[in-house]
Amino acid sequence: MILMDNEELVGFARRVGLFWPSAEIYGGASGLYDYGHLGAALKRRFEELWISYFIEGRRNHFMIEGSTMLPEKPLVASGHASRFNDVIISCTKCKSFFRADVLLADLGVAINEGADAAQIGEAVRAKGIRCPKCKGELGEPRAFNMMVDVALGPEKKESGYLRPETAQSVYLNFYREFTLLRKRLPLGLAIIGRAYRNEISPRQGLYRMRELTQAELQIFFDPEEWNRAEAAPHEGGLSVVPYSTGKQARFTPAELVAMGYPAFYVNHMAMIDRFYRKVLHVPEERLRFLEKGGSDKAFYNRVHMDIEVDVGSWNGFREVGGLHYRGDYDLTSHSKGSGQDLSVSIDGRRFMPHVLELSFGVDRNIWMLTDLFHRKDGERELFSLPTHLSHYAAAVFPLQKDEALEKRSAELCDALGRDFRIYYDTSGSIGKRYARMDEIGTPYCITVDFETVDSKSDNYGKVTVRKRDDKSQVRATTEGLRETLRLTRVAEV
Amino acid sequence: MILMDNEELVGFARRVGLFWPSAEIYGGASGLYDYGHLGAALKRRFEELWISYFIEGRRNHFMIEGSTMLPEKPLVASGHASRFNDVIISCTKCKSFFRADVLLADLGVAINEGADAAQIGEAVRAKGIRCPKCKGELGEPRAFNMMVDVALGPEKKESGYLRPETAQSVYLNFYREFTLLRKRLPLGLAIIGRAYRNEISPRQGLYRMRELTQAELQIFFDPEEWNRAEAAPHEGGLSVVPYSTGKQARFTPAELVAMGYPAFYVNHMAMIDRFYRKVLHVPEERLRFLEKGGSDKAFYNRVHMDIEVDVGSWNGFREVGGLHYRGDYDLTSHSKGSGQDLSVSIDGRRFMPHVLELSFGVDRNIWMLTDLFHRKDGERELFSLPTHLSHYAAAVFPLQKDEALEKRSAELCDALGRDFRIYYDTSGSIGKRYARMDEIGTPYCITVDFETVDSKSDNYGKVTVRKRDDKSQVRATTEGLRETLRLTRVAEV
Repeated sequence: MILMDNEELVGFARRVGLFWPSAEIYGGASGLYDYGHLGAALKRRFEELWISYFIEGRRNHFMIEGSTMLPEKPLVASGHASRFNDVIISCTKCKSFFRADVLLADLGVAINEGADAAQIGEAVRAKGIRCPKCKGELGEPRAFNMMVDVALGPEKKESGYLRPETAQSVYLNFYREFTLLRKRLPLGLAIIGRAYRNEISPRQGLYRMRELTQAELQIFFDPEEWNRAEAAPHEGGLSVVPYSTGKQARFTPAELVAMGYPAFYVNHMAMIDRFYRKVLHVPEERLRFLEKGGSDKAFYNRVHMDIEVDVGSWNGFREVGGLHYRGDYDLTSHSKGSGQDLSVSIDGRRFMPHVLELSFGVDRNIWMLTDLFHRKDGERELFSLPTHLSHYAAAVFPLQKDEALEKRSAELCDALGRDFRIYYDTSGSIGKRYARMDEIGTPYCITVDFETVDSKSDNYGKVTVRKRDDKSQVRATTEGLRETLRLTRVAEV
Repeated sequence: MILMDNEELVGFARRVGLFWPSAEIYGGASGLYDYGHLGAALKRRFEELWISYFIEGRRNHFMIEGSTMLPEKPLVASGHASRFNDVIISCTKCKSFFRADVLLADLGVAINEGADAAQIGEAVRAKGIRCPKCKGELGEPRAFNMMVDVALGPEKKESGYLRPETAQSVYLNFYREFTLLRKRLPLGLAIIGRAYRNEISPRQGLYRMRELTQAELQIFFDPEEWNRAEAAPHEGGLSVVPYSTGKQARFTPAELVAMGYPAFYVNHMAMIDRFYRKVLHVPEERLRFLEKGGSDKAFYNRVHMDIEVDVGSWNGFREVGGLHYRGDYDLTSHSKGSGQDLSVSIDGRRFMPHVLELSFGVDRNIWMLTDLFHRKDGERELFSLPTHLSHYAAAVFPLQKDEALEKRSAELCDALGRDFRIYYDTSGSIGKRYARMDEIGTPYCITVDFETVDSKSDNYGKVTVRKRDDKSQVRATTEGLRETLRLTRVAEV
């Protein structure tokens, strides 16, 4: 695989229609990105596959939607108003602001993710760190709340926030949905939607954005029942960095359970692992779970693992999602905050459901896919997406400008178009048309040539099918073609 | 059809899982709504059908995505920062705020949609209007900008807004997409996404919200070319209220063209009409186009029609979308604002593309569908959605708790589940299970009974299929069933 740096990847993304900074003609906007036609299609395809894998195949799991603006109270109750902070530090001389953990990481100073302003202040003084821009003296670090606040109403007195995570919209709706859905657990409620963070140092393409899309599934369950679960077998084991050892190794689910991780948690790790490997085709060795502990772990999480993928432009493993056993923190907080008892009663037993959260950054996953499947093959540049992830199933080309070829091509498009997304292109040389499809990831190019329409030819009725990845070409009938396309649109799970 | 008032509709929506106010357990949030599992599914289905009808079937039309936060500059250039205003008026005594046009409309005082603060002040004085809450004296009306502002960065000095319409994200990306997509016009770029408005009087369920979902298609075209278009025939004509007469009547496209409406505009009216009648099954007599003119019309629009639907809870026709011929206003404004020339050169001719906007309020459309297809049939309450709009294609029930019946039902679910969304339900009486499916709009209930699994019965292998709307029941084989489901999932257009 050819390593790409950030700049190369951003260039490719821009050139083929994936993504670029918002309001680009005005010079762009820090931490905000737009998706072009190809990126929007890939994002939608990712979301469809996510819904189909994590929600539609599973009993009592549903998608919901929530407003992204929320009043102040629930975000006070959730702890975000007081705790959703980054530590920032500014230069006393040039007045530049820095996110303290990023500043320290850039200088190679190790610091816990959850370090507070005082701890960071100590580290800055101990290492004698000065402003990286002007070498001036740095001021005292301070906590900075990352939520974006909004003020509504005619006098702008109705305070609220843009939600910092979709999860909160789910917790707020848990009780109504639980009641509507006939009071059964486990109940899975998921949202794919926007979340907002006033990042101090937005950068690195889609990795740290001020407006992001999350796909989050909250599973509400009865801890007594789920604690009786057993580890399911899993092909090949799971790659994990346990907090206790800090060393990456491969474990079977049974081994992880023996190490003390709850079986229901391990089974969801296996489910996520399968999604990345089988649905997204992430190579096994590029995927791992990194356990967080100590002050790196959110205080409400009982078990917290980041889902990490290693791609060239990241120079190592980076977080694309997480699996969080949040206990009863969320429902308990909102019970207190709202004064509504969110506990449930099942078979005469009253308890607060626990939550297992599967959280994914959609934009990071799109970046990851872009990096992972961009290829250079000499002069040729190709987006070697798994066929079921590509927007078009195939492209149809008449070999050249000719009435009979164009008529037959249009018929083929109509016939295949009922079941598949087909791109039709008549302009430019065949080579140019191939190159365009390679670049946007279309797995098959179908060419209608003179033999196709010549009733005396052995290849009458047959088209040429050219594969994106190896450029191999075969003759195929429409029916054979349909079967090929049908099979390749399905992710094998 | 049984008329429902707002309250009844909201009750139904809540009871079946469609929608309800956000942060309900905290007392709700004004103008913000969440979609429950059924509503989210219906919304997604609407969006899929919209994309398939307006975008995927059409050449050079694409979906894109844009950030909902935008920097200040583009919204100054677009005119929103100075002109996206409502007139508000407050009571000098009780300090209540009112949206002036809503206040006047409630009192039956006719006023133009675009009336400014001075004109409204005159009307208030002329009619001697006082505060509807406390009868106190009303103050001077004033313009109030409806955009929601956000401040980003460590010192919150980076000013921006939540976009008031998705259209702006498209205009900002036009030039890059035009270039990427090989400089061809017409080019259609669409977004389905959130938009934000600080509504003073949010109310009426999903009709006037502070956070809404829009589905907007901007078609960029060469006016010289499109002005040569001819009116396409259209079955049954179009129901229109021309601004010139103010009277609703039915016109053929050719008649509308003869009246002076551009043919390309009329052809898009026909396309929209067909979407409402054929895809959404809105009865012909409940749909019309209302032309806006004078100060009711946005100043940049050359032709402006609201798409209106008449449903019970609205007591008459109300806007669900619009068709706007915006000329070159948008690209010219952003050329000036950004300093980037957004004009194009095609065949040696340089010009600023014109824009035709098809704009739809997704939430209003969901409300409309809910009202239109909610039915009461004696005790029975049903959501009589067109079959291709319902979330589940069918439900499968074993007649009663029995191993053979459950086994056969599960097999049937698996077999149908590969192609259709199937609901499986084993609990409660068949009557109760029917009632649940009626309420959420599932068109077919399939029951596996003892004859189905009895190899000596004439009905061996056959299930009972019960239709939601007329409760009729027939026996069918799995293959017959599959064919029925397959046909009904497709909207006939």
